[in-house]
Amino acid sequence: MKSWQFATRAAAMSPSIIREILKVTEQPDIISFAGGLPSPDSFPIEAFSAAYEKVMREHPRSALQYAASEGYAPLREWVAQSLPWDVSPDQVLITTGSQQGLDLVGKVLIDEGSRVVVQTPSYLGALQAFSAYEPEIFSVPNDDQGVQLESLEREQLRYQARFIYLLSNFQNPTGMTLSLHRRQEIAKTCHALGLPIVEDNPYGELWFDAPPPPPVASFYPEQSIYLGSFSKVLAPGMRLGFAVVPPEVYPKMLQAKQAADLHSPSLNQRLAYEVLTQPGFLEAHLERIRALYKGQCQAMLAALQRHMPDGVSWNTPKGGMFLWLRLPAGLDSAAMLPLAVQQGVAYVPGAAFYDTQPDMRTMRLSFVTATPDEIDRGIALLAQTIEQQLAA
Amino acid sequence: MKSWQFATRAAAMSPSIIREILKVTEQPDIISFAGGLPSPDSFPIEAFSAAYEKVMREHPRSALQYAASEGYAPLREWVAQSLPWDVSPDQVLITTGSQQGLDLVGKVLIDEGSRVVVQTPSYLGALQAFSAYEPEIFSVPNDDQGVQLESLEREQLRYQARFIYLLSNFQNPTGMTLSLHRRQEIAKTCHALGLPIVEDNPYGELWFDAPPPPPVASFYPEQSIYLGSFSKVLAPGMRLGFAVVPPEVYPKMLQAKQAADLHSPSLNQRLAYEVLTQPGFLEAHLERIRALYKGQCQAMLAALQRHMPDGVSWNTPKGGMFLWLRLPAGLDSAAMLPLAVQQGVAYVPGAAFYDTQPDMRTMRLSFVTATPDEIDRGIALLAQTIEQQLAA
Repeated sequence: MKSWQFATRAAAMSPSIIREILKVTEQPDIISFAGGLPSPDSFPIEAFSAAYEKVMREHPRSALQYAASEGYAPLREWVAQSLPWDVSPDQVLITTGSQQGLDLVGKVLIDEGSRVVVQTPSYLGALQAFSAYEPEIFSVPNDDQGVQLESLEREQLRYQARFIYLLSNFQNPTGMTLSLHRRQEIAKTCHALGLPIVEDNPYGELWFDAPPPPPVASFYPEQSIYLGSFSKVLAPGMRLGFAVVPPEVYPKMLQAKQAADLHSPSLNQRLAYEVLTQPGFLEAHLERIRALYKGQCQAMLAALQRHMPDGVSWNTPKGGMFLWLRLPAGLDSAAMLPLAVQQGVAYVPGAAFYDTQPDMRTMRLSFVTATPDEIDRGIALLAQTIEQQLAA
Repeated sequence: MKSWQFATRAAAMSPSIIREILKVTEQPDIISFAGGLPSPDSFPIEAFSAAYEKVMREHPRSALQYAASEGYAPLREWVAQSLPWDVSPDQVLITTGSQQGLDLVGKVLIDEGSRVVVQTPSYLGALQAFSAYEPEIFSVPNDDQGVQLESLEREQLRYQARFIYLLSNFQNPTGMTLSLHRRQEIAKTCHALGLPIVEDNPYGELWFDAPPPPPVASFYPEQSIYLGSFSKVLAPGMRLGFAVVPPEVYPKMLQAKQAADLHSPSLNQRLAYEVLTQPGFLEAHLERIRALYKGQCQAMLAALQRHMPDGVSWNTPKGGMFLWLRLPAGLDSAAMLPLAVQQGVAYVPGAAFYDTQPDMRTMRLSFVTATPDEIDRGIALLAQTIEQQLAA
């Protein structure tokens, strides 16, 4: 008798390293900078309840019935209008979280052995979603403006990738943002190379002082798929995101969506639409989240300044949820993690976010889950751990 | 400049034939037996509202936050306990509708060229989900007890399929149910052949007079993945289903789920759990749906008896939503559809449900969307259309 025979792709699947780390670090006595969870204080609970009441009073049966795979038409219109370039509602596909957008992109564009370009480091969930379709991934390094263009050009001429995957705003994991000039240059370079763009923008609304420049997709819409999320603006437990897809690709994305889950939950789409369009809600809500996260980010920057020994460096994000820290030469953030957890603080080692050649000195710190007080204590504990390592 | 380059699998994707037919037939003046939508009269709107109130009073933040990919633990326990064989909650994976269960099965078990056995005719959504992973599908015909065993044995010895896909209860499209004896024989045969089983049971609770026999999976649990759905019992717009997966396969299904959409919506899982466990709710609710659908099925059977000319045959489903009709020799249900729509009645031609060698005389009639009066009028119009065709 034979046993189960797995697809080749299943052999390459592995437990999410981050989810495994979270299991260890989510003990109540540990201050965790590891998670990527938005602050639950930011969830608009009352707005959802008002929306639920309205939807179930006006359209209870439609909210509970099967619905169009494209998504709820008013929500698609809302998305199209909210974007800073000319997007038709017909190009908007509502997805079950933006993670599903990544999966559908993989399904429609990646054959076994197809090449895909990613920034390095990059979002782990995207690498996971793509890897199910067995691409060859190659990485282009970032400089302080974003993707290095010469390196992109050289690699693309050699490898002919199917697309480049970009996180333009407050990138997970580094918190880095592409400059306006670099966005325009990337669009120009991709146009010249005939290289389509898949741009992922879950954090764009979470800016601190000024909105980020327009998406790269806005400079090259014909050859860009743009992914957005309601997880950070409304609530991740709703599992709602969207993809803006050029007409040439839309039918295939839609058919892949049908096969994947028929459609995203009707109730959730209607709730999101009602919450987003409550008069005055969105602007006030976003201001509140921005102020909350900015305060937490400043608390972390201040604590780092206060506690960290020489040789530790970090960046200053302009928004989002993450900050990127680099240890002094000779230290290894993955090797150090158990000691840090022992001291009572947790983070995600940077190595988790590299496809190849990880920089072992890096780590991702989330500033949105802990309170400013906890942030100060946690950073102090982390600084202690680093000092012990340096002394050892 | 190059353009988008699609994955090979994308070329094989096509718009859902059924969704295309639904677009034509969902005009208000047409009596449609084409849809597979559960009756909205069956949706427990008040129970959902009570559940929402409770969830958002007690755990609003958890309901809106990211959650475990496995699913909401109490819902997984409820599923395990509700099944008529020994299932551990650890084996239960909550999915975004049972359609996602089919997609994950394909992702984990199908390589390009892998063989998969299906009953013919079979559920189109499953064929769509699997085909994204480029299997070679081969079909085993049904007799009046279900899958023909000799044919299954012969084909499997020749083709060594990765699994057989079965709909055991009130099958979509035929309404057919596997007998107890045939279930046991299938389990025995699959065990002897080392052929894993993927059993899909979205309709099992919708029986009219007596519950169907236990699932095939209960006779061969080590080598079976069992898929269930809350769409017909609660509401399809919630997009919730589940997979019961043997320990050997569970980690891969879980990793595929993570990559596909991280987890199914937290809010929806908690709502479903609260609705399912409201004291006295489920039994009363199921009795109501069963009586509703049984009445509609009887109305359709009576109307067929009353109106159909000689040479038209149909089966008598013991539950579910569909009935299977066969036209007299020489007629073609696909060719006849435009005339039927002109007369004011619609159905899905049976050809849509065959992978190869369709029986062009067959059609699927859904009895759950129209009222008994509309059913009588619709069947009379269908009979007229058939008589005109026979006279032509």
